[in-house]
Amino acid sequence: MRRPRSGRKLGKKARLAASSQASTVEFRYGVSFISVEQAEKNLRHEIPQWGFDRIKDAAKDRWNATLGRIAVEGGTEAQRKVFYTALYRCFERMINISEDGQYYSAFDHKVHRDPRPFYVDNWLWDTFRALEPLQTLLNPDVQADKIQSYVRMYQQSGIMPTFALAQGNNACMNGNHSAPWIADAWFKGVRNFDLATAYEGVRKRSLEDTLLPWRLGPKGPLDDFYNAHGYMPALRPGERETDPHVHPFEKRQPVPVTLENSLDDWDIAQLARVLNKQDDEKLFLERAANYKHLFREDKELMWPKDADGKWIEPLDPKFSGGMGGRDYYDENNGYTYTWDVAQDFNGLFAMMGGTAKAEANLDQLFREPLGRSKYEFQGKFPDSTSMIGQFSMGNEPSLAIPYIYNRLGAPWKTEKRVRMLLDAFFPDSLHGIPGDEDGGGMSAFVVFSMLGFYPVTPGIPTYDIGSPIFEKATIHLKNGKDFVIVGRNTSRDNKYVQSVRLNGQPLNQIWFRHAEIANGGTLEITMGNSPNRDLGADPASFPPDSLETRPENFLQ
Amino acid sequence: MRRPRSGRKLGKKARLAASSQASTVEFRYGVSFISVEQAEKNLRHEIPQWGFDRIKDAAKDRWNATLGRIAVEGGTEAQRKVFYTALYRCFERMINISEDGQYYSAFDHKVHRDPRPFYVDNWLWDTFRALEPLQTLLNPDVQADKIQSYVRMYQQSGIMPTFALAQGNNACMNGNHSAPWIADAWFKGVRNFDLATAYEGVRKRSLEDTLLPWRLGPKGPLDDFYNAHGYMPALRPGERETDPHVHPFEKRQPVPVTLENSLDDWDIAQLARVLNKQDDEKLFLERAANYKHLFREDKELMWPKDADGKWIEPLDPKFSGGMGGRDYYDENNGYTYTWDVAQDFNGLFAMMGGTAKAEANLDQLFREPLGRSKYEFQGKFPDSTSMIGQFSMGNEPSLAIPYIYNRLGAPWKTEKRVRMLLDAFFPDSLHGIPGDEDGGGMSAFVVFSMLGFYPVTPGIPTYDIGSPIFEKATIHLKNGKDFVIVGRNTSRDNKYVQSVRLNGQPLNQIWFRHAEIANGGTLEITMGNSPNRDLGADPASFPPDSLETRPENFLQ
Repeated sequence: MRRPRSGRKLGKKARLAASSQASTVEFRYGVSFISVEQAEKNLRHEIPQWGFDRIKDAAKDRWNATLGRIAVEGGTEAQRKVFYTALYRCFERMINISEDGQYYSAFDHKVHRDPRPFYVDNWLWDTFRALEPLQTLLNPDVQADKIQSYVRMYQQSGIMPTFALAQGNNACMNGNHSAPWIADAWFKGVRNFDLATAYEGVRKRSLEDTLLPWRLGPKGPLDDFYNAHGYMPALRPGERETDPHVHPFEKRQPVPVTLENSLDDWDIAQLARVLNKQDDEKLFLERAANYKHLFREDKELMWPKDADGKWIEPLDPKFSGGMGGRDYYDENNGYTYTWDVAQDFNGLFAMMGGTAKAEANLDQLFREPLGRSKYEFQGKFPDSTSMIGQFSMGNEPSLAIPYIYNRLGAPWKTEKRVRMLLDAFFPDSLHGIPGDEDGGGMSAFVVFSMLGFYPVTPGIPTYDIGSPIFEKATIHLKNGKDFVIVGRNTSRDNKYVQSVRLNGQPLNQIWFRHAEIANGGTLEITMGNSPNRDLGADPASFPPDSLETRPENFLQ
Repeated sequence: MRRPRSGRKLGKKARLAASSQASTVEFRYGVSFISVEQAEKNLRHEIPQWGFDRIKDAAKDRWNATLGRIAVEGGTEAQRKVFYTALYRCFERMINISEDGQYYSAFDHKVHRDPRPFYVDNWLWDTFRALEPLQTLLNPDVQADKIQSYVRMYQQSGIMPTFALAQGNNACMNGNHSAPWIADAWFKGVRNFDLATAYEGVRKRSLEDTLLPWRLGPKGPLDDFYNAHGYMPALRPGERETDPHVHPFEKRQPVPVTLENSLDDWDIAQLARVLNKQDDEKLFLERAANYKHLFREDKELMWPKDADGKWIEPLDPKFSGGMGGRDYYDENNGYTYTWDVAQDFNGLFAMMGGTAKAEANLDQLFREPLGRSKYEFQGKFPDSTSMIGQFSMGNEPSLAIPYIYNRLGAPWKTEKRVRMLLDAFFPDSLHGIPGDEDGGGMSAFVVFSMLGFYPVTPGIPTYDIGSPIFEKATIHLKNGKDFVIVGRNTSRDNKYVQSVRLNGQPLNQIWFRHAEIANGGTLEITMGNSPNRDLGADPASFPPDSLETRPENFLQ
């Protein structure tokens, strides 16, 4: 980050105050990425008048207006506190760093004139799942600005970022998650950005840049292997690293690199179709199925493979792979990653042997013993916290997992699990966050889940129905319309969905389209204390997510 | 445990049921420690009539009657659930194993005729602090039977137990905690047991048995050292164990062995005075001060010393000592044990440099950084969980710590801390227990603290006032009288005690005597949302606990 050269003026004022023996010193300061002069302009502009209380009150008003975008009624006081605290955290990022129609970009180290706001600071690995979809719902106009900022960064640096900070691109985590972020926004109607250039950026990152974790730059031999064979190869136990570009601590992370890029490539394929690039669409749809290379049928788990195509053995999918499992997985173990295929749950279920077998496996995920002491497990997987069996509530790759039951004819298990997770792991106390919060990444799960719906697959403009906490929640959309969710008879015991009406009509499924509520609407969910096992039991009523799903079919 | 030789009869009946193609099989079985014939008698006696629902209803009635001994009004539904769940766990143990006027004792492997019930199964290291005082308040008659059971075990085995299981004595943890259990009950009016023999047992364990952790039997050279020098010596880093009797995993635990036996010996001294054994009283009062040998003034912490009287160095009081710190401490580190001197808080404060310094140290306990990652800490101290600074809510040696502020003129900090701890660590969810529950040992902290009073020093028949959760709580005492605690205006915000009335009279202190409520009484605590800093600020109003305290002065 380029800093103004001096804090000289501030220093003078502080000395003056000290000599006056004042008991309270109030001061204001400006910040600029451009110049000291601009910092002073920013100060005059942003804090035009003295007064700590005045500034505090103004900030409070702004926050009240922002949090007031969603008005909830019912629930307990504790639940309302949890909800608004989570919503508050969902507005932490991104940050508009434009200053009077110009901005300093650390992506080309230049000051640019641009009337449009320039946003930095998001962590897409954590936020593409739930936070960005929430922002797309609440502030589609701002999402366009944020995506266009990414387009600018790509134009300025040649790399489509995934962790764009104020100080430039951050080689962090794995994946190409600007693709699902952008596709999800596009199919929910966000249009005011340069899609063609955005597409060029995510396509280049997938095909020409390296997919190695925590690295940015051109592809190397392991990426060539990936492009040829459709998976990132793992080293055999004891085998020395062959590629000097592999991060010495972060390792290859071969399973999540393969799975997450499969999802990202699926979203690129959808954008390719929008742009009428048929060859690309075909290529990226093929790459979207790469995850299948790492599903080990005899174990019914995602499993790393060596360069010869042999399964890595010996391997404990709960615990192997060194710190955070990074030799094979990343922060989470093989149990969590087995479900990380939101672009093709149907394909996963088929490989598992059908929905009944998949449901049994999903049940078992929440029961499967840790296999060792808690502290031994946490010592190696400090980010995979708040475990229920092998399910971790403390890290983002798990967020959609409880909603998978909706695809298995057992939405009552989604409802039960989500309620239990909210109740157990997001209390109104100092234990309010069960693990990695990541700038709103986890809090968005809370906001959506408490409201009673959830965006399971980034890129498909639909929402799953969950288990609403509040008797009524009103989302004041940016277009002036309201989307109202009514949780009739909802209570701690009444956690099961009995019936659903959307915009006055009965809905015999447990999902709905973004287009059905984007111009206002009402979702009425009648709740009861025992499951309605008929609702959502018919496969024809399952939420849509498979490789063949075409998001454009859900636009209205 | 001696088992009946056969389950033959049950097996026959199960086969019969299977051949009848019944969809539900109901069966009953009896258990005996004495004989198969006695097992059948027990069965006929305890389950006289068939019917699962009938037995279930009878059990439910018994539990309702038991939990109904305390009736609470007000608080949230969640708080009432937490309270009664905690109270339920306080009735898990001890277990009456008498069978028709006789019992099998694993302490001499004989069957004894005895009209009095014989109780087994308690874990005094965990329960002498809060659970046994709760049982003494609720069921003094049963406590007499339980203590007399310990007297019998001592008579049968020659060892006063501390963890008396059905299968005999269990060499577990450290200390001689039947002494504070028995003294606490005695000074609260429990008389129907053989005090002289009980005294003989605890005296023998202190002076003639080994104090080594997880060992029972005669004393050895380290105990001779303790008796001569007043502390258990620690090995220097790298020094090999000299005494083969030291448990290879549990080690010497020199600091807690010294501290906990100091407390236990203080209670023995009090019983010696009851029995008019003046030499013993003097001896045990001297031993009660042994803890002072391990207070390191330059560090203001309890610290291990070698056999030459030198402080062990290098030592990190947060983390040294191997697994669970057992080379020096036990399950918890030096920060927790520094406060483990309930028999003489005044002495501790004096060594720290006065109450103001002690208060600052106590504040710092809750702030002092872990100094390392959570998983590194928990990997070595898996029982010292739910940390706030260096305070652990997850283990019993911490239970009285938040109440220490009452002895420092700052009861509002006790009130604030206790509320925060209850709120954060004992929710109405699957996280309801923050660490080691230990057969009610931790739950009794919850029961007392939610009621608004706490027995800080076992052996002194007084209670500290805390911060009541309920508007009204009625304890139906065994003598037919009621002790009523009124929490006027109590709420989540109104956690601070404003004023107290006991049995209609204003009380200008934050403690009261057991005798004042044992025959019924009313404690009215008026609550508010900011501290009344005058109440309990005068040293003359502090709760009594120092080496010189005479419990008999608080008997009425």
